[in-house]
Parts: sequence; C-alpha cells; structure tokens
Amino acid sequence: MENNQAIGVFDSGIGGLTVANAIQKVLPQESLLYFGDTRHLPYGEKSALAIQEFARRISRFLLSKNCKMIVIACNTASSVAYEVVKEIAPNIPVINVIDPVVKHITSQANLKKVGVIGTKGTINSNIYSKKLLSIKPQLNVSSLATPLLAPMIEEGFFSDKISQTIIENYLKDPQLKGIEQLVLACTHYPLVQDIIAQFYQNDIEIIDSASQVAKVVKSTLFEHNIISTSAVNHQFFVSDYTQAFEKSAKYFFHDNIHLMEISIT
Amino acid sequence: MENNQAIGVFDSGIGGLTVANAIQKVLPQESLLYFGDTRHLPYGEKSALAIQEFARRISRFLLSKNCKMIVIACNTASSVAYEVVKEIAPNIPVINVIDPVVKHITSQANLKKVGVIGTKGTINSNIYSKKLLSIKPQLNVSSLATPLLAPMIEEGFFSDKISQTIIENYLKDPQLKGIEQLVLACTHYPLVQDIIAQFYQNDIEIIDSASQVAKVVKSTLFEHNIISTSAVNHQFFVSDYTQAFEKSAKYFFHDNIHLMEISIT
Repeated sequence: MENNQAIGVFDSGIGGLTVANAIQKVLPQESLLYFGDTRHLPYGEKSALAIQEFARRISRFLLSKNCKMIVIACNTASSVAYEVVKEIAPNIPVINVIDPVVKHITSQANLKKVGVIGTKGTINSNIYSKKLLSIKPQLNVSSLATPLLAPMIEEGFFSDKISQTIIENYLKDPQLKGIEQLVLACTHYPLVQDIIAQFYQNDIEIIDSASQVAKVVKSTLFEHNIISTSAVNHQFFVSDYTQAFEKSAKYFFHDNIHLMEISIT
Repeated sequence: MENNQAIGVFDSGIGGLTVANAIQKVLPQESLLYFGDTRHLPYGEKSALAIQEFARRISRFLLSKNCKMIVIACNTASSVAYEVVKEIAPNIPVINVIDPVVKHITSQANLKKVGVIGTKGTINSNIYSKKLLSIKPQLNVSSLATPLLAPMIEEGFFSDKISQTIIENYLKDPQLKGIEQLVLACTHYPLVQDIIAQFYQNDIEIIDSASQVAKVVKSTLFEHNIISTSAVNHQFFVSDYTQAFEKSAKYFFHDNIHLMEISIT
C-alpha cells in the first residue's frame, strides 16, 4: 500500500527545519507539510500548559490537512506535549525528537558518559536523563542548559566570533568533562554543529537529533506501509508571517517555497 | 482633582519592568497595573500586524480594569502599535517609550552625533532617526540593531563574561564611532547599562528610555490632574505564567508580588 499524503512536521520556529531537511534527504519522495508556530516562538520560555494547547491546535490543523504522520520537531514540545498530540491523532504515527536519540544512545554497549545540551525547558524537565537511565541505569548522563544558543541561532549568528565565544563558554563547563558523545537536544543546534565539533577537535561524536529522527521516520513509514510514490509537494505554514522565517525556510529548501500564514487560535 | 486608578503598563515580557520601576521611583504614590504578554514574547520577531492585534486586546483589558493612563513599555510595540492603542483608549493619555527620548535629545542644542541601539524590529522601522531628524535635521543619527541583547537579558545574563563579549562586539561597530550619546532603544537594556557605560569609560551619556518615560508620565499626570493620593496597590498580570517572569518581577518589586495569569485571546 502506498500513501501520498504529506508528513506533518511542526516546531515553534526555524529549528524544526533542520528535522524537515534531514527527512527530505533520506526520503526525497515524501511531501512535507511544515507548520512553524511563529506567533508563539520560542517555546523554550513558555509554560507546559500553553505549549500543550498550541500542540493540540496544530495537531488538529495537520489532521485537517490529511497528514499521514506527525513529527514533533521541537524538544520542548516533545517533552511536554507528546501525549497530547497522540491523543488528538490516535490513528497515525506520531514521532517525537527525543525517543530516536534515546534509542541510538542506549544501543551502544560501551558508552559510559554522555552529555546533553538544550534549552532550559528541556534540560529542567530531565527527560533525556530519565529516559536514558530507565533503559541503561549504569550510564553517566550530564545535562547542561545552554539557553542562549537557540535565540543566537534564530538571530542568524551561526559562524562568527560571537557564536564561538558563547559556545565555548558553555562547553568548557566542568559538567561536560570526559563525555564521549554530546546530544544536541534542540533542533536549532545542528546549525552550529561545526563550531561544536571544532571545540572538541572532532574527538567526540555529536548526536544530532535531526538525522536520528529522519531514520525513525523512514522505518516507521515502511512499517506502516505508507510510503509515497507521487510527485513531491512541500507546503509551509506559519502562524505569523515574517521575512526572517521565509529567509530561513529558503536556506534549507532552496526552491521557491510558498509560505502561507494561517490562524489556528 | 485626583484619580486613584492604576496606571496601565504593558510589554511582552520583563523589559517593561524597567519602565514600571522607573515610574514607581518618581511617583511612589501611584498604583501600577502591569501586563506582560509572556504568551507572545518576544515582540521583536513578530509581525507588525500580530503586535497590533496583541496591543488591541491588552488595551481593552487595561480599560476594563479602569486604568487612567496606558504606558506602552516596549519599543517594538511603541513603533508599530501606538496609533492602535490611542484608538482603543481615546479618553485617557497614552504614553509610548519613543517620544520622551526624542524630546530629550532634540532639546539639547549642541548635540551632533547620537547612536541608537535596539532590536531588529525597532531599528529596521527607522522610527528614532525619522522622528529625530524631523525635528533636528542637522543631527547625525547612527542606528545599530543589537538583536541578541534582549534574549541574553531575558535569559539572565546581566553581568558576566558572555554579556560583556556580546556587548563589546556590538559597540565597537564602526557605525557607532564618535557618538556623544547612546540611546538604549529597548526597555531591556537598562539591565546592562553598567557594562555599556564601562565600555565607554563613562565618557558618553547613555540615555535610558525608562527614566525619560517616567518623567513624561509624571508631567502628564499633573497636566491632566489625575495624580493619586490613596494607598499603593500594584498588580501584575501575564498571559502565560512562568516562574522566570515571577522571579524578574520580584527583582524589581521586592515586596511579595501577586502574579495573575489571564487569557486575553
């Protein structure tokens, strides 16, 4: 069986585009329907209740567009609203950005110490260490909130002296000493992966959730027998149209994308 | 005549608290009703249309609470939504954070070059240079967007190596060379005023809109004969309750403040 409906992907802003981009690379025949909740970005500083309400409305919208799968392309929303989305969309697969990373890490037998960096919301929820330790209690998980990275990236600082200073200042924290792998627990962070790799002189593995999620999206499509065979048609929706978002979307999806504003309140 | 109703003050987040704080200092007998639109913070990256809609709803809320004056304690909202607020509240004074600064600068006869720093939204709107030059065309106005400062301050980086590096990196921009005064065109920036003053070795005057606005609020209350004589009762409302906001509000208003969440959608 095939299914030519789109895969719904959502985030508060541009971060989820790294996930959409990774999905596009491993599944070039799939259409994506991206929703950026730019009216409420960033999610990192909003309450769990508010994010759950946003996720509920977005999920209803994605279902109204007949999406065959929902990808929560945001760590904050994945940590507080995964159950909410599954409740709204019980008949299609729902993928969050946390479980694929947890699966990848816990599948490595010899790993001893892993670092996790993310927004305050994600790190304070302790979701990575909880999930990792429930499967592999002997693992040493060291989490560090790096709250300035997401706004820094949203503001376009990817590769200059400022981003380097901020990143180095975070990574030299004693808590991250001796880690063998580092999880980028925020979908923005792949955009500064090179600076992070440079800091570690390419000595440790950096785990970028976007590519892990893309792998799981692929295997889930095959499991459910819902791969697409038709022509690709990506659609981009935002809750508040801004040129900044359009520019970022074009950075990832080079073709002339069509960005539509839609109210979901 | 006296009027013991509260002065309504709003912003998207904590920035406006610097304005509320300055008003409290020069008018200790006035009650403030603060509204932080934390559900939509920050305004800097939202569209003008969206901010106008938020401002409309907030103004209606402040009127429903019988505020005797509205202070738009945010540069982005002041630059795109001042007319909207005046339309909603035609019978009470509406103060924005831009005009008091413009008045202060243009009243100085010998000033030649002034710098303005603010969010991308404020700087791209060109509102400061337009207003300044319409009154004093011979003035040299040099504006620079410093978009990382507001999120940096929202995240609690007031006085460490990171904030110093980011601030220095911005201020050494050639555009700001030779300025005699620097306008902090964002209500967050007074929180890093010391670092900025240090960069200039206290050699130039730094114009903090909070204290300029407080002066105008005071003179307007006297002009309209609506000063208060009753006991003070500050009230704080937010559109999304978070501990981060409560912490910041307490930083400025030391007494045990009562923070209420209210939906204005």
